[in-house]
Order: sequence, then C-alpha cells, then structure tokens
Amino acid sequence: MTVTDPDTALPSVADVRAAAGRIRGLVHRTPVLRCAAIDRFAGAEVHLKAEHLQRAGAFKARGAANAVQSLDAATAARGVAAHSSGNHAAALALAAAGRGIPCRIVMPADAPRVKVAATRGYGAEVVFCEPTLAARESTLADLLARTGAVEIHPYDDVRVIAGAGTAACELLDDVDGLDAIVVPVGGGGLLSGTAVAASAPGTAVAVWAAEPAGADDALRSYAAGHLIPQRDPRTIADGLLTSLAPRTFRALSELAAGVIPVAEDGIVGAMGLLWERAKQVVEPSGAVPDAALGDGRFAGQRVGVVLSGGNVDLAVALDLLR
Amino acid sequence: MTVTDPDTALPSVADVRAAAGRIRGLVHRTPVLRCAAIDRFAGAEVHLKAEHLQRAGAFKARGAANAVQSLDAATAARGVAAHSSGNHAAALALAAAGRGIPCRIVMPADAPRVKVAATRGYGAEVVFCEPTLAARESTLADLLARTGAVEIHPYDDVRVIAGAGTAACELLDDVDGLDAIVVPVGGGGLLSGTAVAASAPGTAVAVWAAEPAGADDALRSYAAGHLIPQRDPRTIADGLLTSLAPRTFRALSELAAGVIPVAEDGIVGAMGLLWERAKQVVEPSGAVPDAALGDGRFAGQRVGVVLSGGNVDLAVALDLLR
Repeated sequence: MTVTDPDTALPSVADVRAAAGRIRGLVHRTPVLRCAAIDRFAGAEVHLKAEHLQRAGAFKARGAANAVQSLDAATAARGVAAHSSGNHAAALALAAAGRGIPCRIVMPADAPRVKVAATRGYGAEVVFCEPTLAARESTLADLLARTGAVEIHPYDDVRVIAGAGTAACELLDDVDGLDAIVVPVGGGGLLSGTAVAASAPGTAVAVWAAEPAGADDALRSYAAGHLIPQRDPRTIADGLLTSLAPRTFRALSELAAGVIPVAEDGIVGAMGLLWERAKQVVEPSGAVPDAALGDGRFAGQRVGVVLSGGNVDLAVALDLLR
Repeated sequence: MTVTDPDTALPSVADVRAAAGRIRGLVHRTPVLRCAAIDRFAGAEVHLKAEHLQRAGAFKARGAANAVQSLDAATAARGVAAHSSGNHAAALALAAAGRGIPCRIVMPADAPRVKVAATRGYGAEVVFCEPTLAARESTLADLLARTGAVEIHPYDDVRVIAGAGTAACELLDDVDGLDAIVVPVGGGGLLSGTAVAASAPGTAVAVWAAEPAGADDALRSYAAGHLIPQRDPRTIADGLLTSLAPRTFRALSELAAGVIPVAEDGIVGAMGLLWERAKQVVEPSGAVPDAALGDGRFAGQRVGVVLSGGNVDLAVALDLLR
C-alpha cells in the first residue's frame, strides 16, 4: 500500500480484496435478506446485507479480523487494545481470540451490559473508566504503556476500513444492478470501506451515509467541506455517537454521494419495521440506514442496506418499541 | 395421487415435488441461517431453515398456496375459508389474494392482535366467534353453507401437507449430510410434509417432532399407537395447541423418529437465544424445535430445524423474555 499522508490514507480496492481473502473463514459471509414490508416502506427494492448476523453481531468483526491478521508475529504477541463502548470491543476480542493473542478493552462504566458480556465472553480483559472521552483516552494510553499492546482503532485505521469494505464486496457480488448502498455513519469506517469497494472499475453505485440528526457531524462536515467534530450527541443510536476522523472524512467527501439525517422517531419506526416485519433483531444504530429510506428518496431504485449491529438489551429495545 | 383411505391419505414424494413447482414464485425460498451460540447450546451443527421469513411470516404460506393453486377454476371462484387463530389465517388470505379469489376466516375473539391485522392486511374477511372449538366449527359451517366457499383445513389436507413439505425439500437441497430434521408439531401438517419429503429414496434423515409438554398429544399418541386428542392444552406456544388428525398421526407413527416434549421454561430460553444471539424474531411456537435440542440428544450431529413462525406481539414477547 502506498501511503502519502498517513492521517488521511485510505485503502485501495485491491486492499479491500486482499482483506476479503485474509479474513475468509474468520468471519461469516452474511446472507442478503428481503422484506416486502420494507420494500413498500421505501418504495424501492431493498436488499438487506445482514451484518447483524456477523460474528460478534456486527460488521466490526471484519475490520478487527483484518487488522489483527495483518500484524507481524512479534507485534501480535504483545496483544491488542482499544477503547470502545460498542461493537468494536467484542469484535476485537473475537479477532484476538482467533489469533490466540491477548486483548484489553477500555470501556466506559455505562457501556451496554450486553456488549460488556460479549467482550468478556470472547476472552478479553475489560478495564472500566469514567464515561468521558478524556478518561477513555488516558486509560487506554496507560494500558498501552504498561502492556506494550498495540492499539487497533475502531475506524481510523486503513486495515480496519479495508476489512469493513468486504461487506460491500459481498453485497455487490450477490446483488446485480444496485443503484445505491446506504450505510450508517458514526466514525465512518464502514462508510469509508463501502465507498472504496464501490469505487472499483465497472461499479456504478452511489454510496450514502445515514446518521442520526442528533449526531450529525457527518452531514455538517460534508456540507462545510471540512471536518466538524461531534459535540453533545443526542440519539438512541448509541453506536453512532463518535466523530469522523480526517481519514474517514476524506472518504466521505471524495467518494460518497451524500449524508441523510434521520430523526429519532424515524429510527424507532424503522427498528419496529425490522423487528416486526423483517423479523430481525437490530440495535437502534443498525436501523438508521433503513430509516433513511422512509422519505421515498430511493423510489424505484435497487438499494443495498448494511444492517448492523444486532447487539441490544432486549428489555431496552422493547421499551423503545412499545 | 392414489387415495385409498381419504382420511389418512398422505401426499407422495412426487406430490411434494409437484407442490414445489406449483408454488414457485408465490412463496419465498427462505435462507438457512447458522448461529454459533445455538450450535453450542445443542452441541451440534444446527441449520435453521428460516420459515419465519416466509411470506406471511410462517411455513403455512406453502400449504395454503399449494391448496389454493390446486383448486379448479369453478371451485376457486367461490372462495376459500377456514377457522384459524394463527398463521394459517394470514397464509390462506395471502394465497387467496394471489389467485384473486375471496377468503373468509373464522377467528376466536381472543386471537393475537398481530395475526388478525395480518389476515385483514391480505384482504380477507375476518368473522369473530367465541374462543371454543365448537363455536369455531359451527361458525365456519354456517359460513360455508352461506357462501359456497371451500374449506382449506390448516393441516388435515393432502395439498396443505404437500406444500408444507417443500420447506424440507429446500433444506435437504441446501444442506448436505443432515442427520436429523426437527420440526414443531401442533396439528401435524409440517411434520407430515417434512416426513414425506425426507422419505425420498436416497435420503436418510430422521424427522423428529418437538412439542410443548403442556400440549403433548403427539407424544402420548405416538407412545400409545393410536390418536389421543389434546384436552386443555397449557402452553405459551399458541400455534401448537391443536390435536393431530388421523392423517397426520399416520405420518407421525409411520414416518417420524419420535416426539420430543419441551418444558415451558425451555421454550422461553430457546426463544431468548434466538432473539439475543441468532437475532431472529420468532414466536414461542417457533422456538419449540430449538428448545428440543437443549438436552444434547443431537450432540455431534448435523441437524436441520424449521424455524416458524415469526408473528408475535413484541410487547407480549418482552413480557416473556424479561
């Protein structure tokens, strides 16, 4: 990989393809599901790439597996670490377990119970800290200094982005003639990988980012033409609270078709449709790209949607859906 | 089809194959899903035939479609009818709509809200009655006399059984080397169709029936060697309350490997596993065959499970799963 500016380097299409080969057998090739009620909701032919059925319940398993498998033996032996309140935590734990190396995750004390349990279930050590970004970063820095572990960032990492892009590769292989792919955007790793995958020669698919209106740094950054960090996000989509990085902002501004903001009631409505009609358990963040179809903007088109993740406390979700 | 005793006639393997051709395009070819947590739960390699993703949310769409498509034009024009509190209602409504003929369904006043709404959503007329079998039968008899409609029984019907068997045909096509298939048993239509499909030459798959211990007419009938009707069933699996018919008892006793009773807490536990880990919304009845894997009786085997249906009030499910 030729890297000029390491802060904004993106993987190439070839890197995404190499990632697909590297992680084969370590992650699932997830199915693509259809649902008539969602087609009617969107006025479109909607193909749901079921990444909530991915190992560890989210597309994050792809990037983590690619990053961990890319490490040289000496580095890998020191173990990996990250701070994450969400799906990257369990994904990295799973990837480390797959290579037999230690994994340490810094999590805020208020992280969802189900995500803490999953992370520990894959054998990672969980280190709790105060629920602030400063506390997470300082706790992780201490941990890296103490253990010599290598940080695998949840999205600001070329290897993670290349891995995330493999979901779109499979979707493009499985569904001919897609007009658009809609993905959720938080930090922008999935968006970046998808946009790179869709930039392959001979592919003419518009990649859209969907985000909660209450955490709309991607929309504001895209409109302004420069990165505007997220402050005080307010949304039930707890997987999409983070800000873009310079790297993922570059992918958004250079490769994506645009950003679609969705309101909170739209997220809950889409989640209800996914549970009741598509029979799929997705977390609020995973319902965001479906919510983005609700205003009919893709009417008559063939649209791929990446559904992810599926990690949610049932009681919490059902209180939302009541 | 050669029919000797019409009350216990079963479809042949060729009838099931003909049904598959007749309903192609009218029902979904559902995916087969895997889930590592369910494999661990069973100690087996479990392949979930996702009939809760079938049209109208249950395998019932297959039998209803085959029966409705088998009618001659003059009979079809008079419309179809049934009494059903469950998934057959919506399935028959959908099948009738697909042929453009009237459908009338007798439902008990306490039928699940979601199933009433689905039935009406496909354009059927719903006629409510007291929640007793006698009231359902007399209301349906009146309706048949008044309208000239033809009754399509939910399971005691060769065409319905042949249609139900097409799910197993697909599962056998998609998964090599299955040792067993486990299906839920209520009236026995799915069990009968599955057992016929698995009796094809060259197929060596044991077909097991799973039923709630609180509605265990199949177990008692199988053990006794004659049909023992269900009295006073007590189970949350509201789709499995009905008794076998002579026809489906014959399939059970001649073609099935046996009956596995499951306790209520086992049903809730399996349902929780399906929701939380497999990310699939299934109703209690649909979780019954998974619950049957929990005692390790299929350890080391490759097992197919028919998951169906997915029609459940989310609020009701929450109360169960809390």
